[in-house]
Amino acid sequence: MQGSLVYEGKAKKIFSTSDDSLFLMEFKDSLTAFNALKKGDFKGKGELNCQISTLIFEKLTQVGIKHHWVETSDRNKMLVKKTKIIPIEVVIRNVIAGSLAKKLNIEEGTALKSPILEFYFKDDALGDPFVNDEQVLAFGWATQPQITQIKEMAYKINEVLKTWFGQKKMLLVDFKTEFGLDKDQNLILADEISPDCMRLWDSETGQKMDKDRFRRDLGDIDKAYLEVFNRLKGEG
Amino acid sequence: MQGSLVYEGKAKKIFSTSDDSLFLMEFKDSLTAFNALKKGDFKGKGELNCQISTLIFEKLTQVGIKHHWVETSDRNKMLVKKTKIIPIEVVIRNVIAGSLAKKLNIEEGTALKSPILEFYFKDDALGDPFVNDEQVLAFGWATQPQITQIKEMAYKINEVLKTWFGQKKMLLVDFKTEFGLDKDQNLILADEISPDCMRLWDSETGQKMDKDRFRRDLGDIDKAYLEVFNRLKGEG
Repeated sequence: MQGSLVYEGKAKKIFSTSDDSLFLMEFKDSLTAFNALKKGDFKGKGELNCQISTLIFEKLTQVGIKHHWVETSDRNKMLVKKTKIIPIEVVIRNVIAGSLAKKLNIEEGTALKSPILEFYFKDDALGDPFVNDEQVLAFGWATQPQITQIKEMAYKINEVLKTWFGQKKMLLVDFKTEFGLDKDQNLILADEISPDCMRLWDSETGQKMDKDRFRRDLGDIDKAYLEVFNRLKGEG
Repeated sequence: MQGSLVYEGKAKKIFSTSDDSLFLMEFKDSLTAFNALKKGDFKGKGELNCQISTLIFEKLTQVGIKHHWVETSDRNKMLVKKTKIIPIEVVIRNVIAGSLAKKLNIEEGTALKSPILEFYFKDDALGDPFVNDEQVLAFGWATQPQITQIKEMAYKINEVLKTWFGQKKMLLVDFKTEFGLDKDQNLILADEISPDCMRLWDSETGQKMDKDRFRRDLGDIDKAYLEVFNRLKGEG
């Protein structure tokens, strides 16, 4: 079923398949941060992210969120719908951390009364700059109806995941995702959601269970990702 | 009528007056750029900015834009309504220049099909960071109805000034302004509009007629500001 390599990114490889409307997505063991200035890897990361992402897509399916995931066909590979990606990274924050903490000089860990949504223009050469709705519209990166729908979907995904992770004693601090258009021009979630692209803290100890362990050289990233998988996989 | 000094900023002094609802605003000759890292001045700048700002307030009065200007009481002084300033700098762009040109690596001078509006959080210590509507709401800097009204007013001010300046052979590239609440909680324009806080290019030669002459050491800033005043003052 796996065809030729279509694209290789920082953490994934995309292959064509015998079905023209589907891609095979392979999760790599590599880790990058700070726009790929920092590089690393750990054995089994691709598999863990693929399996965590699978559990999350299953959850989102249950609540009616449209997404690109079709099935997980191997330990580190999933079949996904081909989409035309909207060139915007969508970030949702429940707690202040990372770049927003720095920008506003607010202590990391400060809870927000309601979530904040941010758009970043997907462009590695420009460093994925923070943009506003007016810029997204002016440069034609998305239409107003698409912006409205992206925001609705992102907030809903956040509510679902925040609640579910909370039951598993994990605080969803923030996450980044992307959207795309399928062959019928439906807007769907078109990105993995995994500890590579979220901040997730243990609700009781505050310990980081995400890529910040790599960014900040905290160690034990493999154990943290495995713990996220085990908690999400467990009953409840 | 002039009372005690209430506040001294980079380009203006604010004095109390015998009327509790009014301030006297004095325009200084000093110039600053890059968050006051670069400093300078030229004799008569305060007077020119006060007179240019007066002509602009007169124009905005004609088209029904509510603002803080009451009257110009001296060559470099105007009486303005006291307002509670909303801590957001509002930028409107008709042509790409400055920080947006750098951020997106687009050539300065590229025209936009429709104007772009941007918000910056007014905080010198943070360097007035670029923010989006969601951040403005989350941190309580403005309410949603205020954001909507600010945008409507800013776009209208832009249309009026762009057309008027165009008749005077000047291209309004971008400008920054601020809004505030008067004693009756009406949202009004509460900032000068002058060559200190806009980009204005000669329509024919492309010559800069604004503070970029100071930022970029182009010289003849006094002549440029005087030319702006003369063109706006002239018939037509």
